[in-house]
Amino acid sequence: MGSTKTKVDFEYILNRYLPEDREKEEKRKISRSIIDKINKRLNEMGIDADSILVGSQSRGTELKNSDLDIFIRFSNDYSKEEIEKIGLNMGFEIIPDGMAKYAEHPYVSGKVNGIKVDIVPCYRVEMNNRIISSVDRTPLHTIYMQKAMSEEMKREAILLKLFMKRQGIYGSELKTSGFSGYVCELIILEFRSFQKFMEYVSCLKGNLTIGKENLTRRFNSPVVIIDPVDEQRNAAAAVNETNLSILKVASKFYVTEPSEFFFTYDEDISSDFRISKDSYIAILRFQKPDVIEDILAPQLELTRKSITNFSISKGFHCINSFTLLNSEKMDVLIELEEGKLNPFEKRMGPPAENSNSVSFINKYSRSGLRRRGPYVESGRIYFDIYRDETEFRKILTKNMDRLNFGHNINQLKQKMEIIDQWEKVRKQEIYIEYMKHARPVLPP
Amino acid sequence: MGSTKTKVDFEYILNRYLPEDREKEEKRKISRSIIDKINKRLNEMGIDADSILVGSQSRGTELKNSDLDIFIRFSNDYSKEEIEKIGLNMGFEIIPDGMAKYAEHPYVSGKVNGIKVDIVPCYRVEMNNRIISSVDRTPLHTIYMQKAMSEEMKREAILLKLFMKRQGIYGSELKTSGFSGYVCELIILEFRSFQKFMEYVSCLKGNLTIGKENLTRRFNSPVVIIDPVDEQRNAAAAVNETNLSILKVASKFYVTEPSEFFFTYDEDISSDFRISKDSYIAILRFQKPDVIEDILAPQLELTRKSITNFSISKGFHCINSFTLLNSEKMDVLIELEEGKLNPFEKRMGPPAENSNSVSFINKYSRSGLRRRGPYVESGRIYFDIYRDETEFRKILTKNMDRLNFGHNINQLKQKMEIIDQWEKVRKQEIYIEYMKHARPVLPP
Repeated sequence: MGSTKTKVDFEYILNRYLPEDREKEEKRKISRSIIDKINKRLNEMGIDADSILVGSQSRGTELKNSDLDIFIRFSNDYSKEEIEKIGLNMGFEIIPDGMAKYAEHPYVSGKVNGIKVDIVPCYRVEMNNRIISSVDRTPLHTIYMQKAMSEEMKREAILLKLFMKRQGIYGSELKTSGFSGYVCELIILEFRSFQKFMEYVSCLKGNLTIGKENLTRRFNSPVVIIDPVDEQRNAAAAVNETNLSILKVASKFYVTEPSEFFFTYDEDISSDFRISKDSYIAILRFQKPDVIEDILAPQLELTRKSITNFSISKGFHCINSFTLLNSEKMDVLIELEEGKLNPFEKRMGPPAENSNSVSFINKYSRSGLRRRGPYVESGRIYFDIYRDETEFRKILTKNMDRLNFGHNINQLKQKMEIIDQWEKVRKQEIYIEYMKHARPVLPP
Repeated sequence: MGSTKTKVDFEYILNRYLPEDREKEEKRKISRSIIDKINKRLNEMGIDADSILVGSQSRGTELKNSDLDIFIRFSNDYSKEEIEKIGLNMGFEIIPDGMAKYAEHPYVSGKVNGIKVDIVPCYRVEMNNRIISSVDRTPLHTIYMQKAMSEEMKREAILLKLFMKRQGIYGSELKTSGFSGYVCELIILEFRSFQKFMEYVSCLKGNLTIGKENLTRRFNSPVVIIDPVDEQRNAAAAVNETNLSILKVASKFYVTEPSEFFFTYDEDISSDFRISKDSYIAILRFQKPDVIEDILAPQLELTRKSITNFSISKGFHCINSFTLLNSEKMDVLIELEEGKLNPFEKRMGPPAENSNSVSFINKYSRSGLRRRGPYVESGRIYFDIYRDETEFRKILTKNMDRLNFGHNINQLKQKMEIIDQWEKVRKQEIYIEYMKHARPVLPP
């Protein structure tokens, strides 16, 4: 397993994170029974569809306590409305106390014998065919990987997933912008072993690219990995530059001194990620409206940028900002050196010798604003204008109307909540995520 | 007087600031009597020297309550020690309760019939001759101007002096770095009238230059005015760029709307120059040692720069800094947005993919410093290092040994006083000067 020169006890790691035989057997039984039930009902109803187990479970790369993902593949003859309706009905037949959730299609999520199960409708498509929606591709990944991966490679892929998880860069959802399980498997298909990939990526400069050059070069992402089931697609499009950087740093450390540390992901955040309360952190919270995340996510990013740029333009010294989108709320966190501004603001005018220095001076002198100046610095005219407000919280509230947060979030401005008391801030999910983000996790 | 298009009552202004006939007559008598006394004694002692009235008084451009400056010109046959000794003796004969003061030579300063009189020794030199020291030039200025200036031009020069005074840019001493009385007279010699100079300088771009091009171009100052008694010298070398800028702005306003406002210099600082106490101001005070100001002034400037650069390097946001050198003390004032830093300091490392990212991380991880990170931003590794101290006062005190203030001021570090309580700061002379500096004074 891996390279023989390492002293890492991979068996110990796999034993710790892979499901035990009992869990595996239980899940196999449950998924088999669900699939049989669904297929029987579809048959009875004369519907041209079948169900299939997808996800890491179906590809043999699952970790302990993973979910079961069962997709119902419909013929293209059915409309979107039809497959969604049949999909939901079928889902609630299997999981009567399940909940409807919304992604590309609505689907049912719930528990069967204590195991979390999602039942999701999609279209049946062929490889490299016109893809109707991205969920339709998922069953193809299962079919492809089942053929392509040896048992040995599955174990290597699991090690890579654990490594990514430990670094907080596992998962392709927007919040993480990291490496999906499928991407980890594609990497192992290319490099054959975890160790070889580590050696490669630890020396890598620039982008990580896997696939024929004529295919990869049309993508412009930090990581480009051509999806073998759809060569028009970069399977690693979600990975951002920061996460690739973290992978590079962490792999350098791993290659130099490999250890179990790099695979143990469930430990607490080490205390040195905590900051004292002396910088100012505000969390701006919007209740999540009934709009899909794909629409909200770019608006939340716009909100973050608007607030950051606004803060800087007002004279605050911004340390960083961050967003979190979850099922109930949308948060923007902003960290500033101080929550309170200096009481005056420097306004630069033209050079003294410039003819409009007079109008600049007249403008401010007659403005009625409280001010210092005019004065000269490096040949230019300046005024210091007194600020009526100096507190971030108040300045932001006062100027909310002028900021653009995007169509949906703009409508939520009135009910925006600002959390900036340290004792509250430090307990928020977004704060905890913020403390973890963009950090390679390295042995002490 | 001036241009006919203005409505300024110049007679009123001149009456207000020029000495009355009684004052003139009184001063003429006193200076005559002192000069006679000195010349008689020199004659008795067989010394090849004579005394002469110099300064604005001698050139007919003096304002009310101006001092009398009487120079004793010695032949070059006398050594520096001799002229200083004879000069002091002669001075104390005339002003028995006078005080010895120190410039290029020691001299005696005191009051005669309630009028301030300085008695200063110098060498007798010819125009454009080798000048032994700059005081030696002063009698030549008197001789030159007495011939060159008409009564009309003297009045124009007085208006220019008043204008400069009002703008706080009158005086060539280091503290002001402005236009001397002699420079004002040279300007009028060139432009003939105050109004013409105002019109010229209000449109001027770049440097102000008076004199033949082959003479002026070898100087590299914002204002170059060749001294007619010594063509190797820029008579306006003291004027800094800021003061030229103030002159440009003020003249623009004057030309547009001339008024008595521009000549009335003894009014209080208007209240809009005052700042609130919310920014942080510290005054660093050194007791003035027994060293001449020409030596101390550049060291005080070095001290200001050292402290400013140090503050910025430590992460403070510096608004401005200022110095004041007077007979007892040397002050540096620094104004910061906050007197207290954010508790951590961002340290930028190499790009993540760079091979020394590992050593950068190891260095900080093993440093024992309290820290956040490592984390990645725009592909680079960063650490946030906790600061043990965040207060300017404490940080400065702790690092005093590392700062260079120049030979003499370095020796005074131990006894440096830091004044940063607002109630004390606002009463200090340097604070009041700071509030006035670099500001064109314009009509409300």
